[in-house]
Amino acid sequence: MTRDEALALDAADPLATLREQFALPAGVIYLDGNSLGVLPKTAAARVQQVVQDEWGTGLIRSWNAAGWMDLPQRIGDKIARLVGAGAGELVVADSTSVNLFKVLSAALTISATDAPQRKVILSERSNFPTDLYIAQALCRERGFELVLAEPDELPALLTERTAVLMLTHVNYRSGRLHDMAALNGAAHAAGALTVWDLAHSAGAVPLDLLGTGTGSGDWRRSKAADFAIGCGYKYLNGGPGAPAFVWAHPRHVDRFWQPLAGWIGHAAPFDFTPGYRPAAGIARYLCGTPAVLSLAALECGVDTVLAAEPLGGMTALRAKSLALTRLFADRVRATCPELALASPADDALRGSQLSLTSAEGQPELGYPVMQALIARGVIGDFRAGDPAHPKGAQDILRFGFTPLYVRHVDAFDAAEQLRAVLHSGEWRRPEFKQRQAVT
Amino acid sequence: MTRDEALALDAADPLATLREQFALPAGVIYLDGNSLGVLPKTAAARVQQVVQDEWGTGLIRSWNAAGWMDLPQRIGDKIARLVGAGAGELVVADSTSVNLFKVLSAALTISATDAPQRKVILSERSNFPTDLYIAQALCRERGFELVLAEPDELPALLTERTAVLMLTHVNYRSGRLHDMAALNGAAHAAGALTVWDLAHSAGAVPLDLLGTGTGSGDWRRSKAADFAIGCGYKYLNGGPGAPAFVWAHPRHVDRFWQPLAGWIGHAAPFDFTPGYRPAAGIARYLCGTPAVLSLAALECGVDTVLAAEPLGGMTALRAKSLALTRLFADRVRATCPELALASPADDALRGSQLSLTSAEGQPELGYPVMQALIARGVIGDFRAGDPAHPKGAQDILRFGFTPLYVRHVDAFDAAEQLRAVLHSGEWRRPEFKQRQAVT
Repeated sequence: MTRDEALALDAADPLATLREQFALPAGVIYLDGNSLGVLPKTAAARVQQVVQDEWGTGLIRSWNAAGWMDLPQRIGDKIARLVGAGAGELVVADSTSVNLFKVLSAALTISATDAPQRKVILSERSNFPTDLYIAQALCRERGFELVLAEPDELPALLTERTAVLMLTHVNYRSGRLHDMAALNGAAHAAGALTVWDLAHSAGAVPLDLLGTGTGSGDWRRSKAADFAIGCGYKYLNGGPGAPAFVWAHPRHVDRFWQPLAGWIGHAAPFDFTPGYRPAAGIARYLCGTPAVLSLAALECGVDTVLAAEPLGGMTALRAKSLALTRLFADRVRATCPELALASPADDALRGSQLSLTSAEGQPELGYPVMQALIARGVIGDFRAGDPAHPKGAQDILRFGFTPLYVRHVDAFDAAEQLRAVLHSGEWRRPEFKQRQAVT
Repeated sequence: MTRDEALALDAADPLATLREQFALPAGVIYLDGNSLGVLPKTAAARVQQVVQDEWGTGLIRSWNAAGWMDLPQRIGDKIARLVGAGAGELVVADSTSVNLFKVLSAALTISATDAPQRKVILSERSNFPTDLYIAQALCRERGFELVLAEPDELPALLTERTAVLMLTHVNYRSGRLHDMAALNGAAHAAGALTVWDLAHSAGAVPLDLLGTGTGSGDWRRSKAADFAIGCGYKYLNGGPGAPAFVWAHPRHVDRFWQPLAGWIGHAAPFDFTPGYRPAAGIARYLCGTPAVLSLAALECGVDTVLAAEPLGGMTALRAKSLALTRLFADRVRATCPELALASPADDALRGSQLSLTSAEGQPELGYPVMQALIARGVIGDFRAGDPAHPKGAQDILRFGFTPLYVRHVDAFDAAEQLRAVLHSGEWRRPEFKQRQAVT
C-alpha cells in the first residue's frame, strides 16, 4: 500500500461525503472517536437554538412547545435503528454507569425471582472498570458474586449458578469483539440473562439486539439480547458527557420496577400522585428531568450516523472501518517493529479500534509515544496496563477509526507519523513523560 | 400599595442591577423561576465556547486543557457557598432523583448498621413525588417502610423506629418552608438521620447545612443536616435539565459506598483497575462521565446568584423575595376574592413562591386561569390537586419569585393581570381548558 493507493481508496469511497458533516480541526488526524466523537457541524447551531430560543425566549413553555419532553424517546427511536431494536424500545437518559445499574438491577431481580439459586454475575476480567464497579456494588447489596474470566473461557463458565452474563461488546482496551448472538444463545441455553454494554459498538459495528431471524419465541433458544446500554459520546458523536441509552427486551421490560424510580419514569408524571406506578415499557427506565442541552447535541451526533443509511448504513460503515484498521495495522507491522498488535488481527473479532503495545518488553513506552504523536497532530489515546493481569499488563496505544470521518489516507499518514515518532527517538523527550490528570 | 410605590421600591432596590445578568424575553413577567430559571446572558456564549472551541477544536484534549474533569467539584464549591456547606463537600452530578437515591441509600445503610431496629423513612405527604417514588423503591429493596404525614405532625412521629427523616425543605406545591435546624435537632435527638431536598431552596433562601454555631460535635445534639441534594435548573438558573448537586456531612461521607459506584467516583479512575475503591470524601458521589455542556450552562447560572454576594448575598435575596411574595399576596387579597392563599402568610414559613387556589370551591379553576394569564404574558404554572389528600385536593396556581430578576412592579403588574383574567371572565374561554402534556 502506497499513499497514492490510500488516496485512490478515498476517491472511490461511497461514504466519503459523510465526512463533510463534521467540524474537524485543521492539521489533526483524529483517531479518538472511540473516546470522544467529533463535533457535528449542526450541533453548534442547534445547541445555540436551544439555549437562546427555546430556553431564553420559550422558557418553561418549551417543555411542550419545543418538544423537550419527547427527546428521550425521539432520540431513542433513532438509536434503536442503529442497534437492531424496535421503535419505542429504547430511551436516552442519564449516564452509561447509571443505566448499567438500572438494567443489571432489573436482570438480577428477574433472575432472583425465576431462579433464586443463581448467584453469579459473569463478566470479562478486562471489562471497562465502571461496569465492574457497578456490578460489585450490586453484588454487595444483593448477595451475588462477580466472577471474571478471559473471553475464551466464558462459554464454559455459563452454569446453573450463572444469573447474568454482563459484557462490553467491544473491549475498550483491545477492541476485541464478542460474538453477541452466540453468547446470547449460550447464556440462554444455560438459563442466564445477558446485559450488553454497547459503548464501543453503537455506531461502530452492526448490531442486532432483537436477534432477528436467529431464534424462536422460546427464550432458552433465543439469540436475542436481554438488556443493553450504551454511550452517546463515542461513535454517536453526542458531545462530552452526552446522555447514554438503555434498552430492555420487550419480554422483560414490564416485569419489574428498576430501582431508580424517578418521576419521569412514572406512568403519569404530571398527575403528581404520591404512589409510584411505573410507565409501561422502556419509559420506566427514565428517572429525572431530561438534560435538554446535552440531548440536543446528542441528536445531532446520532443524525450523522443515520446519514449513512441511504449509503448502506452500518454494514457499509463496518466494511470501511475494517478496511481502515487493516490498513493501519498493515502499515504499522511493516514499519514499526517496536510495536505489536494488541487487537485481534481477525476482522471478525475486531471492533472499530486498533490497539498497539510494545513488542520489546518496554511496558511504559505507550504514554510518551502517544504524547509525541499528539504533538505531531495525530490524536489517539493511551490506556495503562494492569500489572495484575497476565494478558493485559502492558500499556497500550489506542486508535479509534470512525468511518464517518476518518479517511484511508489518514490511516496511512497516522502510521507514518507513528513510525517517525519511534524512529526519531523524539518520544524519549522529557516533556512527553509528564502525565496529565486524564490519560 | 400603588404601582408608583412599587416602582419606587425598585428604584431603591440595592439588588436591582442583578437583573441585568439575564436575557429576559420582552413582554413577559416571569414567575416560574421555581420551575425553570431564566437564561443568564453569559450562558449562550459560554456554551458556544464549549461546543466550538473545547469540543470542536480541543476534542479529547479538553478533559485536561479545558478543565472538564474539574467541573463537578468547581461548580460544587460555588454551590456550597450558597447552602452553608464547606469547600470540597459538595459535587454536581446526575439528576436530583438519582442523587436522592445515592444519599437515601447511604443514610439507610448507616442506619441499618448503627440501629438495625429502625425501619421507617418519615416524609411529608405532599413531598415532591419523585422523592416519594425513590423512597418507595428503596423501601422495597431494603425492607423499610415509608410513613407520610402532614408537616405539623412530623416531630411527634420521630421515634425509635425512625431511620431517616426525608423532606423537601420548601414544599413544591405550597411553598411552605420547614425549619431545617429545628427538625435536624429533633431527628438527631430521636436518633434519626435527615435527608434534605433543596430543589426549591438553593439560591432562594439562606441555608446552613453545617448548622454553624447551632450544635456541638455530639451528633445527638447537632442541628446540622446529614445529607442534602438539590436542583440546578430552578433558582440556580442552570438551564433545562441541568445537573443536580449532592452533599453529605463530613461525619458520614467516608463511611460507606453509595451504590451507584461508577468510575468517576473511584479513588483513581484513570488507573483502570478492576476493583472498586471509592474516592475519599464527596467525590465518591460522582458516578459516570460529567455532562460537560450542561455543566457549563449551570456554572453560568450559579454565578448569577454568587453575584449577589457583595450586595448582601442570600440574606439580601431572601429579604427581597419576602417583600415580593408579600406584595403579590397583598394585591391578590385586595383584588381577587375568587382566590385564596395556599401558601403560609407567615414570612418565616414561606419559601420564595406563592400559591393560590379557588376560594369558592371551584377546584378546577387553576388550569384555565393560568393559561389565560400566560396568554397575557404573566408566566406562572399550575399543579393539579390530589383528590385523596384532605389538605391538597384543590388545584393550585403557582408563582415563583426569583429576586435576582423579578421586580416589585412585576409582582404588582402580575396581580393586576390576574385580577383582569378573573374579572373579565376570559379564563372561561374553551382554548384555555385544553390540557398540554407538561402542565
